[in-house]
Amino acid sequence: MANSTLPFHAFVGRRVYINDVAMRDGLQIEPEFVPTEDKIRMVNALSRTGLAKIEVTSFTSPKAIPALRDAEAVMKQIDRMEGVSYVALVPNLRGAERALECRVDEINMVMSASETHNLANVRMTRAQSRRMLTDIIQAACGAAAINISISTAFGCPMEGAVAAREVLELGDWFAQQGATGITLCDTTGMANPLQVEALCDGLAERWKGLELTLHFHNTRGMGLANALAGLNAGINRYDASLGGLGGCPYAPGATGNVCTEDLVHMLAAMGCDTGVDLEALLACAAQLPQLIGHDVPGQVLKAGKSDRRYPTPPDFVESRERALARDGSASDGKAAASS
Amino acid sequence: MANSTLPFHAFVGRRVYINDVAMRDGLQIEPEFVPTEDKIRMVNALSRTGLAKIEVTSFTSPKAIPALRDAEAVMKQIDRMEGVSYVALVPNLRGAERALECRVDEINMVMSASETHNLANVRMTRAQSRRMLTDIIQAACGAAAINISISTAFGCPMEGAVAAREVLELGDWFAQQGATGITLCDTTGMANPLQVEALCDGLAERWKGLELTLHFHNTRGMGLANALAGLNAGINRYDASLGGLGGCPYAPGATGNVCTEDLVHMLAAMGCDTGVDLEALLACAAQLPQLIGHDVPGQVLKAGKSDRRYPTPPDFVESRERALARDGSASDGKAAASS
Repeated sequence: MANSTLPFHAFVGRRVYINDVAMRDGLQIEPEFVPTEDKIRMVNALSRTGLAKIEVTSFTSPKAIPALRDAEAVMKQIDRMEGVSYVALVPNLRGAERALECRVDEINMVMSASETHNLANVRMTRAQSRRMLTDIIQAACGAAAINISISTAFGCPMEGAVAAREVLELGDWFAQQGATGITLCDTTGMANPLQVEALCDGLAERWKGLELTLHFHNTRGMGLANALAGLNAGINRYDASLGGLGGCPYAPGATGNVCTEDLVHMLAAMGCDTGVDLEALLACAAQLPQLIGHDVPGQVLKAGKSDRRYPTPPDFVESRERALARDGSASDGKAAASS
Repeated sequence: MANSTLPFHAFVGRRVYINDVAMRDGLQIEPEFVPTEDKIRMVNALSRTGLAKIEVTSFTSPKAIPALRDAEAVMKQIDRMEGVSYVALVPNLRGAERALECRVDEINMVMSASETHNLANVRMTRAQSRRMLTDIIQAACGAAAINISISTAFGCPMEGAVAAREVLELGDWFAQQGATGITLCDTTGMANPLQVEALCDGLAERWKGLELTLHFHNTRGMGLANALAGLNAGINRYDASLGGLGGCPYAPGATGNVCTEDLVHMLAAMGCDTGVDLEALLACAAQLPQLIGHDVPGQVLKAGKSDRRYPTPPDFVESRERALARDGSASDGKAAASS
């Protein structure tokens, strides 16, 4: 397996870090409130799978996102596992203060690379977001890790193409201000592998010392292909959402975030070291439909892992005996060949 | 865009050939019979999209696959477009004779790399299949192109791992016997990109002069990632199925073939030249649910292309005015940030 002249063979043994965002990015758009104790139970179960990070909740206004109105209760009552970083999204300084009171390991903040999406998503101009996020970095610096998620980094559903230099310049700014991590988000699933390669080439070097994460959506089926392109460009951190939970209010009809168990399954099959126990993760994903009241788009949960074995068909032994008996003559041609 | 030191940038401008198999591999497992005139209409519409090949039907026993019992009628009545290769699957010599009577451009035949799947799928031992396919190649040679689809090339759902040398040796054999093309099929979606890279490395050289095609399923969400790995290994021909129609009777619950329009969409976004008019292809896919009576898994049909634009939200102008009016002060934090 160790032919390192082949690009993907270089992935074998590579450490890849997974941040599960289902409990925040997924639940925030669910119409039904998930009871606090169920959220805590799910975070605790996720904590035991080996995930590097869990985005637990958002310290936002209960009016804005009623689904996450129990942020304090969840954050304070979960078991904190050694080695897992517990993240919360915060929309403003008050949110950051609430998150720090709950001793989050990492604060995540969002702004868009495109002006229109930033206004539509967080109701601020980019200049306002940049100032506010900078203020929060200064206030929270040292008390927690601080990640900036740059939305629409691969395209804006309203404006269209987003210039790479806008994204890079934003990242440079927050790196200078003291952010400890930057996530490039493909908010509505517009990215393709060529674009991922182009934007991410040299980024690990440019933002050395920062945690650099990619956040893909599977809107047009390219989620795992984009992750592959990210790996190829040297990026080792990925957001993903259990069951593929999540979506985007600005892209109705679209499927959600890249599915955590599908991503971990692919990475494991390619020999990457995610640290995640896939069976334990699948057990978490299997509980999702009951938690949220509907099916989820994850595929490995439905199909089983690649190494799943099926029994031979009921007429197999008879078929074989008949085949051997007529050896040399042609088939009866009655089988429905699948390719 | 032309930084050719980045691997995926080398794909820009590359000619990639798509063979749509929905009308055969997709329809053969549909419980409802699609009327002959509807099949003809769909093949004719597909012919005008710029696809390189269309697998039109299967000349098999009407008892085995009643859904394709109209093979002659479809094959004889479709419009034959210049530049499109019309393919039919044949399970035996009688099927090949029927296909040649209908002047197919290419005969496709299936056998599995694994003994158990071959017995289960075509009710012959591999040795029997090999002999029969060789006889058919000799009979049909010169009258049509002849493709051999090697099923379970990336793993068998019953036996598990399939040794690469078994696959390569089978391909070598059929290349020597006069086949004009070989397709490696990931019959139940077990392949991962590392494995695709490993199996396909050097294959274009090994089977030079043959048309070499990859046939992926999206069973575990890796369909497009595997195609990316195939491209990276120098393979330029792909099977795919309109709408993602199809599946495998030996992997219940699994989703189907890689979706043609999702694959073409990704390839177009990466600058590859598929020759396919994506809008025309999407128009074909949009007719599928009515044709077969149920929804299909294709994603681009649901989400729209990457360059789809959305209007700003209804309260956008008001939000912006409010944002500009309070310039310098913090947001009201009431927006539900999506990343």
